[in-house]
Amino acid sequence: MEFQENPENPLVHIISSSTEAEEEQEEEYGMTDAEREEIEELIGYKFNDPGLLQTAFTDSSYKKEGFETESFERLEYIGDSVLNLLIAREHYVANPEFLPGKLTLLRAANVGTEKLARAAMKWNLHKFLRHRKPLLNDQIGEFSKAIEEYPLHSAGLVDSPKVLADIVESLIGAIFLDCNSSLETTWQVVKKLLEPMVDNTTLRPHPKTQLNEYCQKNNLQLEYENLWEKTGEVKVYVNNKYVGTGAYRSKRTTALNRAAYKACTQIFNDFTSPNPTPPVLD
Amino acid sequence: MEFQENPENPLVHIISSSTEAEEEQEEEYGMTDAEREEIEELIGYKFNDPGLLQTAFTDSSYKKEGFETESFERLEYIGDSVLNLLIAREHYVANPEFLPGKLTLLRAANVGTEKLARAAMKWNLHKFLRHRKPLLNDQIGEFSKAIEEYPLHSAGLVDSPKVLADIVESLIGAIFLDCNSSLETTWQVVKKLLEPMVDNTTLRPHPKTQLNEYCQKNNLQLEYENLWEKTGEVKVYVNNKYVGTGAYRSKRTTALNRAAYKACTQIFNDFTSPNPTPPVLD
Repeated sequence: MEFQENPENPLVHIISSSTEAEEEQEEEYGMTDAEREEIEELIGYKFNDPGLLQTAFTDSSYKKEGFETESFERLEYIGDSVLNLLIAREHYVANPEFLPGKLTLLRAANVGTEKLARAAMKWNLHKFLRHRKPLLNDQIGEFSKAIEEYPLHSAGLVDSPKVLADIVESLIGAIFLDCNSSLETTWQVVKKLLEPMVDNTTLRPHPKTQLNEYCQKNNLQLEYENLWEKTGEVKVYVNNKYVGTGAYRSKRTTALNRAAYKACTQIFNDFTSPNPTPPVLD
Repeated sequence: MEFQENPENPLVHIISSSTEAEEEQEEEYGMTDAEREEIEELIGYKFNDPGLLQTAFTDSSYKKEGFETESFERLEYIGDSVLNLLIAREHYVANPEFLPGKLTLLRAANVGTEKLARAAMKWNLHKFLRHRKPLLNDQIGEFSKAIEEYPLHSAGLVDSPKVLADIVESLIGAIFLDCNSSLETTWQVVKKLLEPMVDNTTLRPHPKTQLNEYCQKNNLQLEYENLWEKTGEVKVYVNNKYVGTGAYRSKRTTALNRAAYKACTQIFNDFTSPNPTPPVLD
């Protein structure tokens, strides 16, 4: 059924039962062949069962009366396990001397929400997400702007929409099932999607951890002034000297990390240098 | 080099450099061919690289001066990921209607410390563990007795030695690497080691959770008397009526779960019945 304009009175809509319109709607509701082919081209993998690909991009909000559809939740569950194993194996083989603690940190950086959400944006996967969440497009837009400001992995400086990470995981799950559980086939796609991987040379702790460790080691007094409830801001003082402010309205931990990042930049002069020469704070 | 008795003065040891003794010591230090074959027979898998099998059974405490050896920590890290994926896939395929929450519970029951420690005991894998932890054999003995009392998965009623679960995970990691990452080959061994798997019909929440939910639902007042610091015991009262005591010196949560288990048995008459008829507590 669809609403049609009444030519006699444009404010009154006529309800018609157009079978043609229904068929069109059904087609619109499903993923088109062109969309499928575009994704397959992007990721370099052709699906045997295109239904898996469609499910991988379907959020649970994408429901319409009369149309049965499965959401990506179950595929995401499988994809998460596949991704964990693939990344674990990669770092295990590449770093024969690393103990589990180090391997766990490396894996966390490569399978975390931010890393996966960035991968989704980089490969334009968000374009194909099927959802009916009114606020989501704005969140994705905000994230897209935020990562321009922090082009590398931000380690807690940006707030990443979970659904972007979800579709990467569900896509990995879909490929794994579609290729009959071949780890090697799945790995080819994962490697491409996630590059450049975070490795031992690019792994960086969250600014808050970094600042905390630095102050402890150098016997400096560290204090945060929490104005977040009022203004969305957090201010940092080291040995009673103001060293930076971080702001983020939607999430306090992100504001905190941004404040710590500003403080680190201020204290270390050059935050990215491996051997910073910090000024004396007294 | 080894110390030998001085026939002229038994208190003075002569340092000799006996190559024969060293060789004998080296052989004793490594896993024997007979041990390897026994394990391979038990698990139904023959290793291409027997070094991996030896590492899988070597605790980090098993060190001797002059002998380099790797412990199972890294293999355990890989095995944990492999096991997670294999169990996730198994339940995913077997239960097409289960959402991730349910799948996560099922997986947790099959990859948890107690389940894996029981598997190690069932298949006698603990016999081959190479360690120098003076208290470990007693702990294993205690666990062995405890599981006689709770023959099914106890869900928190016994305290399981983590090292027993570790060797199952490291063995799975060793097989996975040895068979060139074949999930199917690894799964054949895992299925055998872990059977019977906990499935939807045998999955059971911890007694504490069960008792809590029951009391909330039936509007009953639940209280624990904590005597653990003094006697290792916890007592439970429902609507001020004493319903059971649980005792376990080494771990408070185990004592608590045992108390809840006694209480459930008391309240439900037959705890194992799917439709218990609880008495009125007033």
